[in-house]
Amino acid sequence: MKNFTFQNPTKLVFGKGQIAKLSNLIPADASLMITYGFGSVKKNGVYDQVVDALKDRKYIEFWGIEANPHVETLRKAIDLGKENNIDFVLAVGGGSVLDGTKLIAAGIANDKDAWDIVLSGYAKEQINYASVMTVPATGSEMNSGAVITRAETKEKYSFGGIKYPYFSILDPEVTYSLSEHQVACGLADAYTHVLEQYLTTPNQSRIMDRWAEGILLSIIEIAPKIKANPHDYNLMADYMLAATLALNDFIRMGVTEDWSTHMIGHELTALHGITHGHSLAIVMPGTMRVMKEQKWDKLLQYGERVFNIVEGSDSDKIDKAIEMTELFYRSLGLTTRLSEENIGEETIQTIANRFNERGFALGENKNVTGDVTKRILESSR
Amino acid sequence: MKNFTFQNPTKLVFGKGQIAKLSNLIPADASLMITYGFGSVKKNGVYDQVVDALKDRKYIEFWGIEANPHVETLRKAIDLGKENNIDFVLAVGGGSVLDGTKLIAAGIANDKDAWDIVLSGYAKEQINYASVMTVPATGSEMNSGAVITRAETKEKYSFGGIKYPYFSILDPEVTYSLSEHQVACGLADAYTHVLEQYLTTPNQSRIMDRWAEGILLSIIEIAPKIKANPHDYNLMADYMLAATLALNDFIRMGVTEDWSTHMIGHELTALHGITHGHSLAIVMPGTMRVMKEQKWDKLLQYGERVFNIVEGSDSDKIDKAIEMTELFYRSLGLTTRLSEENIGEETIQTIANRFNERGFALGENKNVTGDVTKRILESSR
Repeated sequence: MKNFTFQNPTKLVFGKGQIAKLSNLIPADASLMITYGFGSVKKNGVYDQVVDALKDRKYIEFWGIEANPHVETLRKAIDLGKENNIDFVLAVGGGSVLDGTKLIAAGIANDKDAWDIVLSGYAKEQINYASVMTVPATGSEMNSGAVITRAETKEKYSFGGIKYPYFSILDPEVTYSLSEHQVACGLADAYTHVLEQYLTTPNQSRIMDRWAEGILLSIIEIAPKIKANPHDYNLMADYMLAATLALNDFIRMGVTEDWSTHMIGHELTALHGITHGHSLAIVMPGTMRVMKEQKWDKLLQYGERVFNIVEGSDSDKIDKAIEMTELFYRSLGLTTRLSEENIGEETIQTIANRFNERGFALGENKNVTGDVTKRILESSR
Repeated sequence: MKNFTFQNPTKLVFGKGQIAKLSNLIPADASLMITYGFGSVKKNGVYDQVVDALKDRKYIEFWGIEANPHVETLRKAIDLGKENNIDFVLAVGGGSVLDGTKLIAAGIANDKDAWDIVLSGYAKEQINYASVMTVPATGSEMNSGAVITRAETKEKYSFGGIKYPYFSILDPEVTYSLSEHQVACGLADAYTHVLEQYLTTPNQSRIMDRWAEGILLSIIEIAPKIKANPHDYNLMADYMLAATLALNDFIRMGVTEDWSTHMIGHELTALHGITHGHSLAIVMPGTMRVMKEQKWDKLLQYGERVFNIVEGSDSDKIDKAIEMTELFYRSLGLTTRLSEENIGEETIQTIANRFNERGFALGENKNVTGDVTKRILESSR
């Protein structure tokens, strides 16, 4: 096991009716701004719940944080926050609203331009922020990372090392209004987050392995049931908790991590607008195929413990595990091949060039270069 | 899934050589007291590491916190802390030193007598405290509970609702000096902590179930290996992390809990000095036998997923799971029957009377009364 430091101070407030606790959760003296997307929260009743919970509080609102939040939009929110001496931001929405809000919280507390904060990879100062999470997927509600897009150059970068959310409210009932595609992308995102932390170096931590497998098994079990019954409270609660636990540091104690699939997927989103979770469903099977030798032992363990694959040669078992992974993503209703999204050689070369120019060497062994990335994408044609 | 709130802000600093970071972890302006047991830390080198790490800091020491810490001893530490305006306590030792230190941290910040703090169940004010944990077992290094003994009346009470440790340093190498009996009791303690949170109401949370089973499987796997090789770093790291994760709120999100075995076990410790983990090995199989009907579904699941018991009638499978549990405790080198410890009817009646007098109704369904406790202990004769 590797040495590690773990600290995740976010208060998770989980369950039915918890949005009503908002006013007690936000510090009494907070100068508050609430951030939103484009109004889906007005259709599903979340906005009304928030307004009702905060009827005795003063706050300003910022609307219009888009999917894959644009730094261009966030700069406007930062300016608004600075003008109003905001010291606490509440994100009400999905992972994009919250990721954008993380940059807003850093931008308000810094003189740097927001994109420079993203590029520098962390922000020394930030004001506090919190969330009412409405789309289980990114895990952003209980971690210190965010992914921001610069629309003018079609670039998408992750940054971390920022404060954890002060609190996050997760009410599974707010997920009832999600579309089947949103749920599919959310499940694919959570599933892939786990694989990025699990399909790496073998024999590092028995419990981290078991916990990762436990989330994977749970997601595989609930996915078809949710399709059949998307308003089942316990199913949606399992889904919502799975998304949080898939990326809140709980399954990365003392183990190496990969994240090359995410970095490649971000490019597909930046260049072609593919929804984040969907992009991972396309890239991850390719990563498994190309990195098969390096991930050999872990792929074997994954196949046996998650898909009960015990017959055949080790190589055959691994191939079967990769096939089952791709079939799982497809069972969600997602495509898993670039050709299905009309993405071809030009994009593959663009991404490989970008990674080579940036000097990227990704993955648990820092060997996924632009050229390896090209092989991964070719494998996902 | 039940509604829940989760927040665990403890900083976990895990791995080889981490004690050297002590000075950076303790606030620079802290008025520091360090608490110890009886000197085993001087034999295993931990004391020297702590002294070396804090050579530029001023502090006072308090020695002599015993196993199952006595409120009579802790009152002396509280007085010493008050006299010296201590505002930060560092516990260096096992769960008893740390549990005692939790009461010290509360006692220094309160005018109440220490035993009144225990009986009231929580302390409104506490100074900060942290730990260098040397005996993986109680999970005290990352939770807000403690168990305190009043020697004069042979009473042992748990209390909670106190601050979490400011940080805890866990270096698996410090476990190399533990005796086989200490490791056995530590593994039994961690294993039973998981069962108290798992063998309850079925179908509450898929991931909590999987995570609990993941810790149980890991402990079962490492136990014989540690016996054969107690200086294997990765094994001891798995053991140390298992003990922490077994009782740091991570596997209790949205689920009911039992804890009747613990409450009964505390009595065996208070009345007969049985080591805590050992007391649980005696009581838990009895709890399973007596509560078989109530825990039916979960016992079946436990048997299948943890011990791979798939043959026979459901009742037979459950009996087999209970038998395997008792055999696991015995495989650690612990006795599992009261008669093996020369404990008889008199003690059973004393415990039943105590629970009836206190009006106890324990367990996930609040139905483990003094009379049920008597049946559990009779079953463990």
